[in-house]
Amino acid sequence: MTQTIFVLNGPNLNMLGKREPGIYGGKTLKDIEADCKAAGRELGFDIDFRQSNHEGTLVDWFHEADEKAAGVAVNAGAYTHTSVALHDAIRAISVPVIELHISNVHAREEFRHKSMIAPACKGVICGFGPHSYILALHALKNITA
Amino acid sequence: MTQTIFVLNGPNLNMLGKREPGIYGGKTLKDIEADCKAAGRELGFDIDFRQSNHEGTLVDWFHEADEKAAGVAVNAGAYTHTSVALHDAIRAISVPVIELHISNVHAREEFRHKSMIAPACKGVICGFGPHSYILALHALKNITA
Amino acid sequence: MTQTIFVLNGPNLNMLGKREPGIYGGKTLKDIEADCKAAGRELGFDIDFRQSNHEGTLVDWFHEADEKAAGVAVNAGAYTHTSVALHDAIRAISVPVIELHISNVHAREEFRHKSMIAPACKGVICGFGPHSYILALHALKNITA
Amino acid sequence: MTQTIFVLNGPNLNMLGKREPGIYGGKTLKDIEADCKAAGRELGFDIDFRQSNHEGTLVDWFHEADEKAAGVAVNAGAYTHTSVALHDAIRAISVPVIELHISNVHAREEFRHKSMIAPACKGVICGFGPHSYILALHALKNITA
Amino acid sequence: MTQTIFVLNGPNLNMLGKREPGIYGGKTLKDIEADCKAAGRELGFDIDFRQSNHEGTLVDWFHEADEKAAGVAVNAGAYTHTSVALHDAIRAISVPVIELHISNVHAREEFRHKSMIAPACKGVICGFGPHSYILALHALKNITA
Amino acid sequence: MTQTIFVLNGPNLNMLGKREPGIYGGKTLKDIEADCKAAGRELGFDIDFRQSNHEGTLVDWFHEADEKAAGVAVNAGAYTHTSVALHDAIRAISVPVIELHISNVHAREEFRHKSMIAPACKGVICGFGPHSYILALHALKNITA
Amino acid sequence: MTQTIFVLNGPNLNMLGKREPGIYGGKTLKDIEADCKAAGRELGFDIDFRQSNHEGTLVDWFHEADEKAAGVAVNAGAYTHTSVALHDAIRAISVPVIELHISNVHAREEFRHKSMIAPACKGVICGFGPHSYILALHALKNITA
Amino acid sequence: MTQTIFVLNGPNLNMLGKREPGIYGGKTLKDIEADCKAAGRELGFDIDFRQSNHEGTLVDWFHEADEKAAGVAVNAGAYTHTSVALHDAIRAISVPVIELHISNVHAREEFRHKSMIAPACKGVICGFGPHSYILALHALKNITA
Amino acid sequence: MTQTIFVLNGPNLNMLGKREPGIYGGKTLKDIEADCKAAGRELGFDIDFRQSNHEGTLVDWFHEADEKAAGVAVNAGAYTHTSVALHDAIRAISVPVIELHISNVHAREEFRHKSMIAPACKGVICGFGPHSYILALHALKNITA
Amino acid sequence: MTQTIFVLNGPNLNMLGKREPGIYGGKTLKDIEADCKAAGRELGFDIDFRQSNHEGTLVDWFHEADEKAAGVAVNAGAYTHTSVALHDAIRAISVPVIELHISNVHAREEFRHKSMIAPACKGVICGFGPHSYILALHALKNITA
Amino acid sequence: MTQTIFVLNGPNLNMLGKREPGIYGGKTLKDIEADCKAAGRELGFDIDFRQSNHEGTLVDWFHEADEKAAGVAVNAGAYTHTSVALHDAIRAISVPVIELHISNVHAREEFRHKSMIAPACKGVICGFGPHSYILALHALKNITA
Amino acid sequence: MTQTIFVLNGPNLNMLGKREPGIYGGKTLKDIEADCKAAGRELGFDIDFRQSNHEGTLVDWFHEADEKAAGVAVNAGAYTHTSVALHDAIRAISVPVIELHISNVHAREEFRHKSMIAPACKGVICGFGPHSYILALHALKNITA
Repeated sequence: MTQTIFVLNGPNLNMLGKREPGIYGGKTLKDIEADCKAAGRELGFDIDFRQSNHEGTLVDWFHEADEKAAGVAVNAGAYTHTSVALHDAIRAISVPVIELHISNVHAREEFRHKSMIAPACKGVICGFGPHSYILALHALKNITA
Repeated sequence: MTQTIFVLNGPNLNMLGKREPGIYGGKTLKDIEADCKAAGRELGFDIDFRQSNHEGTLVDWFHEADEKAAGVAVNAGAYTHTSVALHDAIRAISVPVIELHISNVHAREEFRHKSMIAPACKGVICGFGPHSYILALHALKNITA
Repeated sequence: MTQTIFVLNGPNLNMLGKREPGIYGGKTLKDIEADCKAAGRELGFDIDFRQSNHEGTLVDWFHEADEKAAGVAVNAGAYTHTSVALHDAIRAISVPVIELHISNVHAREEFRHKSMIAPACKGVICGFGPHSYILALHALKNITA
Repeated sequence: MTQTIFVLNGPNLNMLGKREPGIYGGKTLKDIEADCKAAGRELGFDIDFRQSNHEGTLVDWFHEADEKAAGVAVNAGAYTHTSVALHDAIRAISVPVIELHISNVHAREEFRHKSMIAPACKGVICGFGPHSYILALHALKNITA
Repeated sequence: MTQTIFVLNGPNLNMLGKREPGIYGGKTLKDIEADCKAAGRELGFDIDFRQSNHEGTLVDWFHEADEKAAGVAVNAGAYTHTSVALHDAIRAISVPVIELHISNVHAREEFRHKSMIAPACKGVICGFGPHSYILALHALKNITA
Repeated sequence: MTQTIFVLNGPNLNMLGKREPGIYGGKTLKDIEADCKAAGRELGFDIDFRQSNHEGTLVDWFHEADEKAAGVAVNAGAYTHTSVALHDAIRAISVPVIELHISNVHAREEFRHKSMIAPACKGVICGFGPHSYILALHALKNITA
Repeated sequence: MTQTIFVLNGPNLNMLGKREPGIYGGKTLKDIEADCKAAGRELGFDIDFRQSNHEGTLVDWFHEADEKAAGVAVNAGAYTHTSVALHDAIRAISVPVIELHISNVHAREEFRHKSMIAPACKGVICGFGPHSYILALHALKNITA
Repeated sequence: MTQTIFVLNGPNLNMLGKREPGIYGGKTLKDIEADCKAAGRELGFDIDFRQSNHEGTLVDWFHEADEKAAGVAVNAGAYTHTSVALHDAIRAISVPVIELHISNVHAREEFRHKSMIAPACKGVICGFGPHSYILALHALKNITA
Repeated sequence: MTQTIFVLNGPNLNMLGKREPGIYGGKTLKDIEADCKAAGRELGFDIDFRQSNHEGTLVDWFHEADEKAAGVAVNAGAYTHTSVALHDAIRAISVPVIELHISNVHAREEFRHKSMIAPACKGVICGFGPHSYILALHALKNITA
Repeated sequence: MTQTIFVLNGPNLNMLGKREPGIYGGKTLKDIEADCKAAGRELGFDIDFRQSNHEGTLVDWFHEADEKAAGVAVNAGAYTHTSVALHDAIRAISVPVIELHISNVHAREEFRHKSMIAPACKGVICGFGPHSYILALHALKNITA
Repeated sequence: MTQTIFVLNGPNLNMLGKREPGIYGGKTLKDIEADCKAAGRELGFDIDFRQSNHEGTLVDWFHEADEKAAGVAVNAGAYTHTSVALHDAIRAISVPVIELHISNVHAREEFRHKSMIAPACKGVICGFGPHSYILALHALKNITA
Repeated sequence: MTQTIFVLNGPNLNMLGKREPGIYGGKTLKDIEADCKAAGRELGFDIDFRQSNHEGTLVDWFHEADEKAAGVAVNAGAYTHTSVALHDAIRAISVPVIELHISNVHAREEFRHKSMIAPACKGVICGFGPHSYILALHALKNITA
């Protein structure tokens, strides 16, 4: 049976392709969504791919995931580093959540080195460009199998 | 004459009862709303009970409270520890605001020890489970009497 | 059956009414004792109200409370911010302890923001003037009921 | 040809005139909007003046500015000091952004001394009351000329 | 009647045009003096434009300004970040002082993010290249009008 | 053509299976080596799997990898958090290096939150148990393809 | 008319003459008491000279001073650096208090550089050996004259 | 000839056996006193075993030890981490002092990792349960032999 | 025989009487010089009273004092908190130096709590208004007697 | 039956007797080995006494101890303060480990105050010179009895 | 052709020979100037040797060096640790600058460990007594050759 | 008579020429060894030139130097910033040790600004490329002459 996976994207990720391509590469979020859906088909996942610039909306979606999804892959963007609300949202649900980043945040500004959500997640994947999403899906496959 | 009191709830409090019951107990937010309304009837308060995962919505509600309420009891959840916006919202209004928490935040993770909003509030009540809400209403009764 | 509650007051609280009335109000500690006793009668509590400027005496009283009291409300004054000994004393006993303050310590000097005893207490109430004592008694009623 | 300038206002700025007039002065945001529009007419700018209490909405507006505006003057209010999301939004777009504040934030609480968005902006103007907005428009004129 | 404005420049600003043009641009301090005098003529200001590498001389000039000037625009260069003496000098006088910088100091090394003099100034303008001087003169016009 | 991948393991990883199984699981390092070799066969990688408790030996192996391997997956164990030497070794070579951890280091003691080597690596994968190794191999496949 | 001055000595000062004479000199506390009394006679002061190793006793004495003394000279010894209770005791009374030390605390261990009581005192005198006491009495003469 | 050894116990140690037995074990302070006296008889020591919750009393006892004892073993409990007064008391006397703890303080809360008195003591023994007392006596035997 | 004492004044002290009289009082530096000379006559001191806003000049004067003076009383103003050069100048000479302040620096901004020169001085006197100068002269009398 | 105890010595301890005798005393490591073996015979312990300057070798020996020894006494020297690898090695094994030091590390440089391995050890003994080794053996006797 | 080298000396170096000879040795600055000139003759350098206690004068001399010298050796004394102005002056010029110190600053007080100018210099030499100057000249020879 | 000098190189220096040539230059360690030997011949030094990636081996070599060498020049690479063991090894021996670096570590990452070994060395030389080695040999010549 096909499982639903939420792939949630935080602030400014709608600007991918346009935003600092030296750091984030040339792919758009649409491209990544297509890649995730292709990988999902292979892994038996139904991918529900969303993006929001609103912290509260992301919190809402985590709660929704607890009802509808078998796992969550989240690129929380800037909220990764500041949001106790997302930390609590992940703690509040029982499905596994994986934190991912396109860039290697540890090689960037000091304020990107600390993740507020990592302690609440199952694991973290960062630095592999858009392929980070695919790795996260593979990780979820392994966890939910 | 009956006074209106806003009881505002921040992110993830809609998950009460389900979320980490070892910390937050088994009551749902609906249960707490009922308790507050019962206590309100006794104290001569009309309780306007709300919850949002959106920081901006909480800011909006504080502004609204300045027009409509005689006092505010707020459990700002995770935003307690990060939100300068809520601090400023409370500073910007003239009705008394009381910060409350279900759990004893000082006995939990380091990042929950600091409240950004406490300096702008009248007082703080934490650690008494759902009864923290009732104590806050009693405190408001005493202040607004 | 009437339960005994210890209401313990730390250093300089004997100066209330005289000491910085802009912060602490005009009531003396005697006035507050009378208020607590009145509230105690209503709640079925026998109030044992004490004050000391000595950290060691406060430690002694916590140990005594473990034998004689159903709960403790403590305004530890300055020792709140420095005393590991009081933290350990509260940890060492099994009756519930509530930390209270007359003023909103979070709106004052930096060194009053940190409580050494809060993590060992059941809960914290601060900022409501002498009414903080009454709220603490109500909280104890709820806990010991 | 007339250029469009976005003048974006963050949380609690809708309370201007009412909120702590000792710090922010007696003018309302409506008054400032009128001043900006008058100055805009003089400088050949079409002023699109907005306010939101929602961090995510401000992020959205920065993205929109990249399509529609020649520059942005932003008074991000409290989010100035906490928002990595706004920092990233400004980095993600190519139109020049100027940070402004009504009050001199450096003469206020410690937590207002640090701006998370300043490193991503072209420049900063603060402390001149509502006139900070007009100076920002003059600065944008000079940059976009 | 024409008012005198002191435009004071701190250490190394005599090297402008030669010093790190990628950061400070190609204009010399002479060029900026000419720009300020032109703007001064328009604004009804008599510009007294000075530069010194000596912290003590800058202190002296602030004292002198209190007698002779209607306002001061100061680019204190490196002393911005280290000088309590300049902070006190600005506090000691009653004419308004505006801090300005050519570059956006918040986008540079950590040790340039903190201004020791900003809390004593009326306001701060930075990041607009030599145009920062002109904006400071406009700000002074508005203040002293 | 088959590429060689070095899978390097740091201090105490030879104790896997025996060491704190609640954190690290019941698999031995031998088991993980077998898993990696199986995955390697599928991905067209020749796996050179090594373990040492010596920081200097790990440095030597990174240098050797620069000659012999197409990529490195490293679980540097405790040296992750203290070793500038490993950071420099990774910087000194040109083959891509991926940092991995069995446990989610961000959910453990404070001193495990900081990685000295992450800024020098291509990316980081942690928290997936022994499956972290397999994900790292997949990541290397994608990079070296 | 003769005024009473309290000269209060904190922990370990009873060991003077015996305790680390390289730092504190060879005079005993008795010797210093005699010196103070001699100086008191000259200045028209009745000297009430006391020593205690108990923080609480020192707090008690400050309260007593508020009734009986025209001023207090205090060498709070080790409690200087740790006692919020003494800070509050000094704040709670209206007679002027002068902090003094025999040694130059700023030339000793880091933990002696910070005084918790200095902000609540009128002034501070340190480093002059037993003569610090005499200078404090002269200072009190000037204040209470 | 028999030497006298002071064994001094700080705050809350009178609660041993009752207080958090998971950390401190089931022995009471009476039991430990008996063990110490037995060991003392074997080592030729006359054990003077005391406990106080008062910091000042502990200071007094150190001074007394300088007259009467050949050495001191001290479990200063909570005062270990906060008391400059005890540090100074130990510095002020010439008999050797050994700091001991029942639990391994380094494996507990952060605020128990720092000892204010250790730098003034001869040595430190911690983590061996009540046997820490016996080891301290053996150490004193070796020092005073 | 009359001894010469240098009384050195740092930046902004020439503004006394005019500068923030709420903090520094209404006396001018001329008034204080007269007071010092009067006290000097009584104590057998020839007072050489100087003021400079230049750190280097103050360094020069310390060197000069080593040749000509029996002691130095210095109110280094703002340089107190920042000047390693003055610290070294005081270390480099053999005449005793006393640090003094008009205001109680410990009751003011955080950056005035730390003195860079105190560890190199004989002692410190602060908080007694202009009388701090006279107390410093008395202290020097006692030291040089 | 005789139990084997590993006594492990870290970097530079082979220099004992030669290295800073003012701190470490005149005994060589050979002398201490002989003392330990003598004490071992008395306690029924077979002492396996080793020294290495290599962190990795010490890690290896801890693993070996898990197979062969009933307990470990370790003087990890400099690695005490920096080695997460030793911390993990001690965590990874089940035999009790005691940290010991010849000198009182708390009375030395700041960087020797923190032990990375103490939280993983059973207990700590320091400051008793070579006798620290003997006390550690006594402690192990008590634990393993 | 002979090149000119500026050898610049900061505050208090004019006191060499007299100032703390235990740290700085018995040579005077005159002696060092003679040594530098002798070495200069050997290396083909014309040595322009200067000293000032004024930070501003040192800034001026760096600017002058840019016109007249092939390199600068600077012992900035105390300004090393505090002067952003010197940092900027060195950045503003193109001739190579070498930081030198007579003593090993890293073995002295904490506040001498940080150099504000080192990041702007070519290299640093410290700890070799007056020979540090000669080594700096050799280094400049190698750079300017 | 020829003296032996140990020139010790730490981790990754075997990669010179290959490793980040923009920072370290194009010379190999072999080239530098040859340069050192040439300089040694001129200075009357027999150069024993070694490299290791093992911290323990470097410790061993310092001990060996105490027997065989007249001085040590060490480029400890990454261990400079983390190794207390090397600090202690240098303290443990009596021959003079000079710390050197090819690059100017103060102009690089924050974690390279702090040297753990500098306080134990005679002096430090950094930033002169391979010529740093030659300057260190000259410095040793001067010290050992």
